[in-house]
Amino acid sequence: MTPASARMDNPSLITVPVPLGERAYDILVGRGLIDTAGARIAALGARAAAIVTDEHVGPLYAAALTASLEAQGLRVSMITLPPGEATKSYASLERVCDAVLAARIERGDLVVALGGGVIGDLAGFAAAVVRRGVRFVQVPTTLLSQVDSSVGGKTGINSRYGKNLVGAFHQPSLVIADTALLDTLPIRERRAGYAEVVKYGLIDDERFFAWCEANWQGVFAGGPERDEAVAQSCRAKAAVVVRDEHETGDRALLNLGHTFGHALEKLTAYDSRRLVHGEGVAIGLSQAFRFSAFLGLCPPADAERVEVHLNAVGLPTRLSQVPGGCGTVDALLDAMAQDKKVKGGALTFILARGIGRSFIAPGIEADQVRTFLTGEISA
Amino acid sequence: MTPASARMDNPSLITVPVPLGERAYDILVGRGLIDTAGARIAALGARAAAIVTDEHVGPLYAAALTASLEAQGLRVSMITLPPGEATKSYASLERVCDAVLAARIERGDLVVALGGGVIGDLAGFAAAVVRRGVRFVQVPTTLLSQVDSSVGGKTGINSRYGKNLVGAFHQPSLVIADTALLDTLPIRERRAGYAEVVKYGLIDDERFFAWCEANWQGVFAGGPERDEAVAQSCRAKAAVVVRDEHETGDRALLNLGHTFGHALEKLTAYDSRRLVHGEGVAIGLSQAFRFSAFLGLCPPADAERVEVHLNAVGLPTRLSQVPGGCGTVDALLDAMAQDKKVKGGALTFILARGIGRSFIAPGIEADQVRTFLTGEISA
Ligand SMILES: NC(=O)c1ccc[n+]([C@@H]2O[C@H](COP(=O)([O-])OP(=O)(O)OC[C@H]3O[C@@H](n4cnc5c(N)ncnc54)[C@H](O)[C@@H]3O)[C@@H](O)[C@H]2O)c1
Ligand SMILES: NC(=O)c1ccc[n+]([C@@H]2O[C@H](COP(=O)([O-])OP(=O)(O)OC[C@H]3O[C@@H](n4cnc5c(N)ncnc54)[C@H](O)[C@@H]3O)[C@@H](O)[C@H]2O)c1
Ligand SMILES: [Zn+2]
Ligand SMILES: [Zn+2]
Repeated sequence: MTPASARMDNPSLITVPVPLGERAYDILVGRGLIDTAGARIAALGARAAAIVTDEHVGPLYAAALTASLEAQGLRVSMITLPPGEATKSYASLERVCDAVLAARIERGDLVVALGGGVIGDLAGFAAAVVRRGVRFVQVPTTLLSQVDSSVGGKTGINSRYGKNLVGAFHQPSLVIADTALLDTLPIRERRAGYAEVVKYGLIDDERFFAWCEANWQGVFAGGPERDEAVAQSCRAKAAVVVRDEHETGDRALLNLGHTFGHALEKLTAYDSRRLVHGEGVAIGLSQAFRFSAFLGLCPPADAERVEVHLNAVGLPTRLSQVPGGCGTVDALLDAMAQDKKVKGGALTFILARGIGRSFIAPGIEADQVRTFLTGEISA
Repeated sequence: MTPASARMDNPSLITVPVPLGERAYDILVGRGLIDTAGARIAALGARAAAIVTDEHVGPLYAAALTASLEAQGLRVSMITLPPGEATKSYASLERVCDAVLAARIERGDLVVALGGGVIGDLAGFAAAVVRRGVRFVQVPTTLLSQVDSSVGGKTGINSRYGKNLVGAFHQPSLVIADTALLDTLPIRERRAGYAEVVKYGLIDDERFFAWCEANWQGVFAGGPERDEAVAQSCRAKAAVVVRDEHETGDRALLNLGHTFGHALEKLTAYDSRRLVHGEGVAIGLSQAFRFSAFLGLCPPADAERVEVHLNAVGLPTRLSQVPGGCGTVDALLDAMAQDKKVKGGALTFILARGIGRSFIAPGIEADQVRTFLTGEISA
């Protein structure tokens, strides 16, 4: 084995800076980073770390992370939650906050999120509110969390009124994306995360979308293409976050595919057996492009190209692919209206004039959505 | 009745600005302000307001506030919680957040806290996290909340591990302190709030302490002295908050009396029949001065003068005055150690070299506290 000190200079390590002034941090991307995570985290100056993880990830990676932290003299405690979206609840928030307090984490100490987006969002929110804010580190273990949820500081839980409706903006102090951890990720989750990778191309980078069409097998297999896809996605997300940290303006572009996607997740009761977030996003991305074409904004060929690529990697693109169905047009509309991208009653969508040419479209009439969805449901 | 427009130029209105840059706001102090609250709140530009109140305050003042808001065309909804410290819980947070979401409060809308510090802390925290932050207005109805908790943006709930251990910094957009509302406040609560007024004199304003000794009857009776005491307290608090918004430095001075006070509240299980916050603070202030004298830092005569004034208004100053007792020295020490003013294991106290000459004293040894408390308990 290579000694840890040598591995700190991992030649395959890609650093993506997130230049947010006082809240600036780095995203580190590479294979095998978890073994040196302790030194990198200790360098932040904490004395204790509370690891938050779930029952899938903990048994696989918590021992390595704990050992790496303890080797640096940090006092480590562990909080393990059930896996799944239902964990992003008020009850879990209470459980994590109390466990972090029980671990006597002080203001200079750290919460470490070891898991997918569910753990990252929940642990980040707990870190934001325990003692009115302690620092936290993201160690994302799913493709989705490496390319999306661990970057940008949006944290939160779900309410019965919708996903992510309760939370905080709280930037991590460091993100360590060990791409080797994705080797154990079920293929369905890998696909789901890949939907977010594709999203960055669709938003404003047609070349990256074309790169995805050509290189997706390498991303799934774990070649250097995976590191590159993760790093490029983080660069894209970081650029938007730096422009609009608190989502008052064009950070909303990152919601491409999400107005539809969130509604689907809600209507399937956040039941991951039926639909996981990235699958909702895949259908949502296709719908955003088809809706754009329906409105005459986007060439139908572009909507087609989006769907072909998503299908090629095995992602769903149609409402009919949601197991158990997804309710009526009215139920869909209602779920969208309660989504947080509502301003003064009118619906805001992210639409596209073509691949890599998305834009924020406020004031979309419910009737247009209704007609479009009626066609989608009967398709 | 005077028309609302005339009353907006209330001659007795005192405005205390809190110049926090982007988060700057005004504190308005005066008798009868609730009748014009609607116009002042509507001027913030919201379309809807969710009033959060408790079962004591709601029946007294919610109708007036609602009418005043509705007269300005705002859509108003109401959330009423049980009174008392136990309401600052995770369960109430969930209840308030969900009710605010059910009321379809959007990012430009408002949460309005109508109540004492319990309601203000809870509603402010809910506002901080619903949709990752909506604006809120404080309409404090206790003396304590008018002079302290409604100003400065500290919001939160209690954990089983201690008071206010979970929360957020979230500044209000406006504070409306109608001093006439204090006319219905039970005398015990008036006294409790008065402990915080005295605190400002003790921290760094010997002249204000002397003013209190001379004018306290007017403050209790509701004369112009009350408005003056509230406004002066708000000025003092605002000045500290502006210097140190996120309590990384000398904002901690505001915790004078609170390390002891919080421990007492914890050991009486936050049971307001035994002890309310301001009573804990009154005992804590006396203890801070006696502890300072014990350490040879402060003239015993100053500690004596503090105790005499607090007793004169009917406030407790000794552990023996806590109904049901407050446990052993070890229990007290343990409760203090879990308080959030712990840095790296050492205890931080706010001590004084005399009246108006308090300072932050980090690194106080547990043994010194133990010896002091042993004397206090047997006193
Ligand atoms: N904060 C943001 O900006 C943001 C952005 C996008 C998504 N999200 C949120 O992220 C969540 C979805 O995240 P997710 O897709 O990572 O889901 P997840 O956290 O539920 O993880 C998916 C599944 O994979 C398992 N798993 C995780 N890592 C593994 C590994 N290395 N090997 C084997 N199994 C592993 C988990 O236990 C879980 O069962 C949603 O709640 C969504 O709202 C947040
Ligand atoms: N956020 C801060 O910076 C800060 C500072 C100091 C204290 N606090 C918090 O404030 C809380 C204590 O506040 P409080 O003393 O106002 O307690 P409170 O809110 O419990 O009010 C005290 C009692 O008075 C009743 N009441 C309120 N207004 C009334 C009125 N006008 N007429 C009749 N009855 C009325 C209430 O229903 C309650 O029973 C504590 O939780 C403390 O931690 C917060
Ligand atoms: Zn997403
Ligand atoms: Zn206080």
